[in-house]
Amino acid sequence: MSQARLIALDWGSTRLRAFLMGEGGDVLQTRQSDDGASTLHGAEAFARALAGLVGGWREQQPQLRLLACGMVGSQHGWREAPYVRCPADAAALAGQALAIDDGLRIIPGLVDDAAQPDVMRGEETQIVGALALRPELAEDACLVLPGTHSKWARVKAGRVTGFATHMTGELFALLRQHSVLARLMPADGSSPASPEAFLQGVDAARQDGGLGHQLFAVRTLGLFKQLAPEQLPDYLSGLLIGHEIAHGLHDRGTRLALVGDPALCGRYVQALARFDAPAPLLLDNTAPAGLWQLALTMKLI
Amino acid sequence: MSQARLIALDWGSTRLRAFLMGEGGDVLQTRQSDDGASTLHGAEAFARALAGLVGGWREQQPQLRLLACGMVGSQHGWREAPYVRCPADAAALAGQALAIDDGLRIIPGLVDDAAQPDVMRGEETQIVGALALRPELAEDACLVLPGTHSKWARVKAGRVTGFATHMTGELFALLRQHSVLARLMPADGSSPASPEAFLQGVDAARQDGGLGHQLFAVRTLGLFKQLAPEQLPDYLSGLLIGHEIAHGLHDRGTRLALVGDPALCGRYVQALARFDAPAPLLLDNTAPAGLWQLALTMKLI
Repeated sequence: MSQARLIALDWGSTRLRAFLMGEGGDVLQTRQSDDGASTLHGAEAFARALAGLVGGWREQQPQLRLLACGMVGSQHGWREAPYVRCPADAAALAGQALAIDDGLRIIPGLVDDAAQPDVMRGEETQIVGALALRPELAEDACLVLPGTHSKWARVKAGRVTGFATHMTGELFALLRQHSVLARLMPADGSSPASPEAFLQGVDAARQDGGLGHQLFAVRTLGLFKQLAPEQLPDYLSGLLIGHEIAHGLHDRGTRLALVGDPALCGRYVQALARFDAPAPLLLDNTAPAGLWQLALTMKLI
Repeated sequence: MSQARLIALDWGSTRLRAFLMGEGGDVLQTRQSDDGASTLHGAEAFARALAGLVGGWREQQPQLRLLACGMVGSQHGWREAPYVRCPADAAALAGQALAIDDGLRIIPGLVDDAAQPDVMRGEETQIVGALALRPELAEDACLVLPGTHSKWARVKAGRVTGFATHMTGELFALLRQHSVLARLMPADGSSPASPEAFLQGVDAARQDGGLGHQLFAVRTLGLFKQLAPEQLPDYLSGLLIGHEIAHGLHDRGTRLALVGDPALCGRYVQALARFDAPAPLLLDNTAPAGLWQLALTMKLI
């Protein structure tokens, strides 16, 4: 096994993922646990969770540095790493990293306060990773990071100039589980995917009419048996992702990239095609690459 | 007490309201219970709930007719009264009322299937009541019935020509109780109203940007202490009502009326003013007047 150089931590609300990284940013080993930042209270709990996951790596190489990103640096995390304002590049993020101790630093999140404030924690590091892996994105691009709170970030000349959050994934979960729409659908996880219903939802989102109105069609299409119960979740997904794209696309730069879970990004690829958007570049989780790049910038390695 | 002529039943999902009506449509007595249609299963349960609430009235005057509207006529109600298609007037609704027995009839709901189907049950009767009470609305108006599922109905020449449902009230409840936004808010019911925060939410809705994005500002405005925790529910309410109005107002006719709970309608009055809409006509629950009018049309009385 090649020599380890860095322990990179992608520490979000619900998961802690650790990457043992070697020369050139290769991922040598990965470990993960359910010790997300929202499940831990107090510095000792964070320290214990960390030791439990990567203590073995540190015993073998005590000199290894650790670099973390994500909700671990929030108000309710290990300690708060104050947001860096847009526009910001990797050097600005690296320069304001929070040192927990000699061994561990936390990358701050970003705030865009041009209008009403918008925030991210973790995605800034994924963006740094995406730009490191695909330098052609640095000049003028829109990076989309789908998820519970999807981020649409504009990058110009290597800096994040602004971004917007869309609560798409959270709205889907709320409506799927708790709303009147849920009553017509099968229980979670039991439905085969329906690409047709998904695209029908995307196409509905391309029409005039507010989301609060169009959502009601999930009920009526079920009620009038124009869609089968097992198709309704995909229609809902298409409607919500379609609305996100309809509003996100208005300022998309010359290149478009999707960063994140391949299955979810695949939905966005299909939906983007209905908006006649150019085919986006696809990248899986770029947090390790971002942490590596930031560690280089900070001369930790 | 003047002679009773009709028992009018406003029988929704969660409540059953009964009105003993006398000459000229005067409401002589009202009673209500929690025996909403969604809480009852099977015809016997409906019959028992009805007897429990108005059995006393019927014993005194066995010849009294009963006329009901609302979810009692849905698929999961007492028995299904099939939807009447738009455009439709009081005569169309009366003509397709469903007879449960000699004593009781149920007014059907409306379906607008010009585009994706949209439905109402109960509001069609409130609209008939509004037109009976304020005939100047019949020629060309938009009637807004705020609620869990708000309805925006277009009326021309005495007929409902089309309508749209907005899931505003349900989205508010979901986001207020179950979302990431709820975490920054005080527990339900403990906040004094903040008209400033409400109007700030309405104004945000008047800007470009999708609802799924603008909702996230409820979180960030709290996070950056630009709004106090107790102001956030009103901001959320303003945002959702503002989005409803922004989409509803595009086809509003020459007159605008709000029908329903005065406190909730008051919010819509304030929000409409921010859109430079003309001051709307205000009507409280018009279901009894609608049932009276429909009973006249049916020659039940």
